[in-house]
Amino acid sequence: MKMIDIIAAKKSGNAHAQEEINFLIRGMLDGSIADYQISAWLMAVCLKGMNFEESYMLTDAMAYSGDVIDLSSLGSHIVDKHSTGGVGDKTTLILTPLLAAAGVPVAKLSGRGLGFTGGTIDKLESIPGLRTSLSNDEFINQVKNIGAAIASQTANLVPADKKLYELRDVTCTVDSISLIAASVVSKKFAAGANTIILDVKFGSGAFMKTLEEAEELSVTMAEIGKRAGKPVVCVITSMEQPLGNAIGNGIEVFESIQTLNNEGPEDLTELCLYLGALSLLKAGKVKDIEKGKEILREKLIDGSALEKFKQMIIAQGGNIEYIENPEKLIDTKFAFELTAESSGYVNKLDALTVAKASKALGTGREKKEDTIDYTAGILLNKKTGDKINKGDLLAKIYSNSIESGHNSREILSHAYQISSDKPEKPELIIKVVESA
Amino acid sequence: MKMIDIIAAKKSGNAHAQEEINFLIRGMLDGSIADYQISAWLMAVCLKGMNFEESYMLTDAMAYSGDVIDLSSLGSHIVDKHSTGGVGDKTTLILTPLLAAAGVPVAKLSGRGLGFTGGTIDKLESIPGLRTSLSNDEFINQVKNIGAAIASQTANLVPADKKLYELRDVTCTVDSISLIAASVVSKKFAAGANTIILDVKFGSGAFMKTLEEAEELSVTMAEIGKRAGKPVVCVITSMEQPLGNAIGNGIEVFESIQTLNNEGPEDLTELCLYLGALSLLKAGKVKDIEKGKEILREKLIDGSALEKFKQMIIAQGGNIEYIENPEKLIDTKFAFELTAESSGYVNKLDALTVAKASKALGTGREKKEDTIDYTAGILLNKKTGDKINKGDLLAKIYSNSIESGHNSREILSHAYQISSDKPEKPELIIKVVESA
Repeated sequence: MKMIDIIAAKKSGNAHAQEEINFLIRGMLDGSIADYQISAWLMAVCLKGMNFEESYMLTDAMAYSGDVIDLSSLGSHIVDKHSTGGVGDKTTLILTPLLAAAGVPVAKLSGRGLGFTGGTIDKLESIPGLRTSLSNDEFINQVKNIGAAIASQTANLVPADKKLYELRDVTCTVDSISLIAASVVSKKFAAGANTIILDVKFGSGAFMKTLEEAEELSVTMAEIGKRAGKPVVCVITSMEQPLGNAIGNGIEVFESIQTLNNEGPEDLTELCLYLGALSLLKAGKVKDIEKGKEILREKLIDGSALEKFKQMIIAQGGNIEYIENPEKLIDTKFAFELTAESSGYVNKLDALTVAKASKALGTGREKKEDTIDYTAGILLNKKTGDKINKGDLLAKIYSNSIESGHNSREILSHAYQISSDKPEKPELIIKVVESA
Repeated sequence: MKMIDIIAAKKSGNAHAQEEINFLIRGMLDGSIADYQISAWLMAVCLKGMNFEESYMLTDAMAYSGDVIDLSSLGSHIVDKHSTGGVGDKTTLILTPLLAAAGVPVAKLSGRGLGFTGGTIDKLESIPGLRTSLSNDEFINQVKNIGAAIASQTANLVPADKKLYELRDVTCTVDSISLIAASVVSKKFAAGANTIILDVKFGSGAFMKTLEEAEELSVTMAEIGKRAGKPVVCVITSMEQPLGNAIGNGIEVFESIQTLNNEGPEDLTELCLYLGALSLLKAGKVKDIEKGKEILREKLIDGSALEKFKQMIIAQGGNIEYIENPEKLIDTKFAFELTAESSGYVNKLDALTVAKASKALGTGREKKEDTIDYTAGILLNKKTGDKINKGDLLAKIYSNSIESGHNSREILSHAYQISSDKPEKPELIIKVVESA
């Protein structure tokens, strides 16, 4: 088998066989296939596409390209919830203890972030002392003991994805639905789950900009799951405005604690209950979504979800004082207020612009080596559909530098669009895609 | 400017600006743009195409990427004839002295070959002692003194083409009309000509397999020439069967000598006269093709063309005994005959199969380091349309090994297709393409 023949086949729009894809992934990792051949193939994939069967075969080859976590000792239904990423998305921090409180163990591997804010791991690490690099045994044992753990990915999980992504990033070949689907799902397979719930976000603050793209990606991922015998259920949600009110790192933990205490923002709470109920349903714990939401809501009200969160933080070495007194998580040197310059309604609150305002505070990384500011962030006081009067507080900005605080406020002022007519309240959960 | 934006533009099917193409070529050569980015771009070019303007801009950037030969001291009309390559194509060996004999100086830079037989330079080097690596001054002075020189390309002529071709070859991105056109024409521009006559071959033994492809390539090259203010005239010719009767290296020089002596095969002689007359026409020496052919035919008859060839061989240090006694050029240890097993007509003589039969004798290279057999080769006795009787000699095989001679004969036997009906004599010169 020769790589040039594989490139030629894709260039002509032909479908690959499993052995071709295996050859490619193996050769890429052992260095026998050069980067310039992989990148020519990647461009052909972007322009000619891959069918569901090929997408599945690629996912499979990638999933088993490195270590695979064995979670079978935790039970037969291992559910993993994952989000394609958005502004203010802290659902993992809430869902992990919430499901554990409802008796469903969650062994969650998460990533750090490159972008406007950190990833789930960065957010967690805003709690001093907290360790996220757990050994495989520590990770499994913690889930067995308290039902919940969130750890950072080990180096050798899906090395094929790491290598492919590095090349895609510099060759303008990121935006292939098949490549994105394989990247997302292969990591879930390698992380040991056999039922995967994916929050597929679309809109200004998401990777997928339109509902159509989100649907195409969702269908592809569901079809991959079907072929692998591991159900993939996609929940398509809007990311036109940030999720919840907090954007940053520590500030998102702060809001997660509020939410676990049943005092969180309505949209964030609703999404967590929905995704959690879907997980209970797929794990065979409840008969329908409504019953699942009812059970989970009770865990927010009776304090058991927050208690589970504390157990997890303690188990991973985090300073519990920061959970007892969460305002410590947003203890910045300065704070700034953005107020309304006119009265009316918030017609639009652009997620991407909010993300940029957050980035200006140092909440994200451009390169892996960059450090991030854990306490800085934005707390939105008004969101789309809200009525405002001139002078009202729109958002509060937590910053450790006056200059970046001012910059952030200037950017954030462009995120708000005010109108005189009352806009419709935007829908958050749009649809569920799963294969038959 | 960033390479990733250039890739993105081509991926979306947008046309490049000159500065983007210059940036790409410069960055490729100075190493600031990685091979994997170039190859992703190459695939996008193959699948999205380039318009005439872009093809011209790429040609221009490539042509001036290294040394450029200055031939202005030789006159104002510098004509260069070049062939896209075919089986048995020795026209350069004949045309160079023929035009010189007619008073048109020819300063010809040629290449070695990778493939079934050598390139023009390899064929010439079958004459013992002959030097083809001439310094720039030697080259120009020889043309000034005797009107003709054929030299091998210096290392730094069009380095961008060399680098691009290496990448195209291993990434399945060779077959883009724009990239092929830019590769061919940039080398001609760098070699100093201001009028270019291109023999664009199509068929079994050519790179372009169909007339349509040859036409598309010709139109693109003519349009590039128009934009550069350097006319490119394309003569589309058939390469379904070999040109002339000799295929190899020394054996093609042997047939060139016969042709320069007006004793060559009809098809080869006709093509040389046509291409030569076109050169005279474009150099302003004659009013029409017929007059040009008449003048050139006279040079074959009166011996002046062959005399010019001898002067050139002597000037480049070649052993003239091999020209006086050309059978020395095919002095192999063994010779084999392929005879007809039935009577009828040669219905088809497949150029590619003949080339493979020649390769079996060691006449070509697979890698640059390979050595070639200068004396081995094939002499066809019957070609398409010829009547044959059972037992007639179809072709003679000159070989330095019994085993390879037998192999070659076995392959060659499949090149001939015999039919009972008399086929039409195939046309050689199909059409001329030049821009308005």
